[in-house]
Amino acid sequence: MERKGDLLTVREDVRVLDATIRDGGLVNDFYFSDEFVKALYEMNVKAGIDYMEFGYKADKEQFDVNKFGKWKFCNDDDVRAIVGDNDTKLKLSLMADVGRCNYKEDIHERSDSPFDMIRVATYINTMPQAIAMIEDAHKKGYETTCNIMAISNAQEADVKTALDMLSKSPVNCIYIVDSYGSLYPEQIRRISDLYLGAVENTDKKIGIHAHNNQQCAFANTIESLSIGVSYLDATVCGMGRGAGNCALEAIVGFLKNPDYKLDPILKFMEKYMVDMRKNAVWGYDIPYLLTGLTDQHPRTAIAAIKEQDTKYLDFYNMLLDRD
Amino acid sequence: MERKGDLLTVREDVRVLDATIRDGGLVNDFYFSDEFVKALYEMNVKAGIDYMEFGYKADKEQFDVNKFGKWKFCNDDDVRAIVGDNDTKLKLSLMADVGRCNYKEDIHERSDSPFDMIRVATYINTMPQAIAMIEDAHKKGYETTCNIMAISNAQEADVKTALDMLSKSPVNCIYIVDSYGSLYPEQIRRISDLYLGAVENTDKKIGIHAHNNQQCAFANTIESLSIGVSYLDATVCGMGRGAGNCALEAIVGFLKNPDYKLDPILKFMEKYMVDMRKNAVWGYDIPYLLTGLTDQHPRTAIAAIKEQDTKYLDFYNMLLDRD
Repeated sequence: MERKGDLLTVREDVRVLDATIRDGGLVNDFYFSDEFVKALYEMNVKAGIDYMEFGYKADKEQFDVNKFGKWKFCNDDDVRAIVGDNDTKLKLSLMADVGRCNYKEDIHERSDSPFDMIRVATYINTMPQAIAMIEDAHKKGYETTCNIMAISNAQEADVKTALDMLSKSPVNCIYIVDSYGSLYPEQIRRISDLYLGAVENTDKKIGIHAHNNQQCAFANTIESLSIGVSYLDATVCGMGRGAGNCALEAIVGFLKNPDYKLDPILKFMEKYMVDMRKNAVWGYDIPYLLTGLTDQHPRTAIAAIKEQDTKYLDFYNMLLDRD
Repeated sequence: MERKGDLLTVREDVRVLDATIRDGGLVNDFYFSDEFVKALYEMNVKAGIDYMEFGYKADKEQFDVNKFGKWKFCNDDDVRAIVGDNDTKLKLSLMADVGRCNYKEDIHERSDSPFDMIRVATYINTMPQAIAMIEDAHKKGYETTCNIMAISNAQEADVKTALDMLSKSPVNCIYIVDSYGSLYPEQIRRISDLYLGAVENTDKKIGIHAHNNQQCAFANTIESLSIGVSYLDATVCGMGRGAGNCALEAIVGFLKNPDYKLDPILKFMEKYMVDMRKNAVWGYDIPYLLTGLTDQHPRTAIAAIKEQDTKYLDFYNMLLDRD
């Protein structure tokens, strides 16, 4: 694997995506105040972040709007109330889950919507549906990404097939998603190489969305970057489901492009994240290490931490079916 | 850089060193209860850990014994009270800082002491003293390591000179020490390569001691391992100065050698570390990220966190001399 770029210069293909509301919303059921979301938006503009993800476009037939904050649904009007005409360089994205989004109706023409990019999240067995959604989004004028989740549990042959399908689709960027935080830098480099190879003769880009179960979210992100991955997901203070994500402050600190500014992020964190931390729990903890280590969904770890269950050995035995 | 070993097999040269009391002692001034230290010792024996570091051999002329717990001084008798004859495979180490240890008198013959290994910690400008201490320890029958601190601030030419001096000394292992948690995996691989090259034609080993300021302690440890570093420092729950260290539970989870067992560590953590976390503060936080990013000693960040000062931007301006 050849290195792309170095530690001191700027690579023009790099894009940073702030997923705080979307992945962080999985921590607090998307109950962010408008003040918080607006301040985060302004932070992202000032910090030179490329994309801000507002949340999911979840199907209201499937999810009760009274049980979640509005960013699970991302009504265009709610976004407009925050960003107005968004007369900035910051592009806005939303995530649409295969099978959980009534995309034909709920995702409007780009010219009528505040969004610039649709990110389609899919498991590997629903690729045809994902591609239908990507094609729909392109017809409506959007940039798109495809985020293939839980690849650590997938067969490599299936991943290759999915990449082949996507390479022939109009998608702009394919994401490596370490849903369970189970991958180590060495594996991430190998997977990055596989993904980069699949889009070699296209103008498609590769992105990474990492989780911090084994404290590798940031390291995995910069390692994939080092061999050519361009789109980097991060969240403020790493706020995200379970062990959380790559910290935006760490990645902006790392990148050498002077268009990215750390100061607005530090200011935002001192004003908003210190309190947020008191009311919401995320970040590395032993149960997350153990689900990452055993390559499993973090839901059991999230439940254990919610119940303040610190019987780590019993928990590990359960994960290993040793009980 | 060639990979040494892979992710599935066992490398016989690997040694894991638990530095919880020594680096964790910098968090609580070495006030660990005997019950804690004994339980940790028993955990290490059961978990198949190779070395346990009990603390420092600090000079009592320089440090007031009433201001620190006993593990800053590591009297042989205090260690004996925990380990008896230590009739186990676990070897015991202590750290001796250049200029802060009256080693000629305080470090006794190995045959009279509970210790097996002396780790000499030095800055790069005190190499001759470090080598004198290493030679003294060897004459007394000990294994030795040399831990060259703060190399991220040192000139590469000086590091090379130091490695050359050490390669001619009797030292058994030379440690890469990322004192400020400022190094990224890519840099760690490059430095590992440099250190490994320096001992290529000897039977000396290379070790790594990483800090977690930028959440790279574990990733840096396994990345250096992947290209041939053998001695791996870790602490339970990453307990250590400031942002802490590579977590022992993460590294034991990662290693495939069945002689290393995770269960005793999980049991120890649930019994002792849940409470420890309530009374002592360490681990990744924004001020540590910022000292790591700017390659500075974490002392200012430790002070800020102690004072619960969350004015992150002011802190960053101070580090950058922008105030």
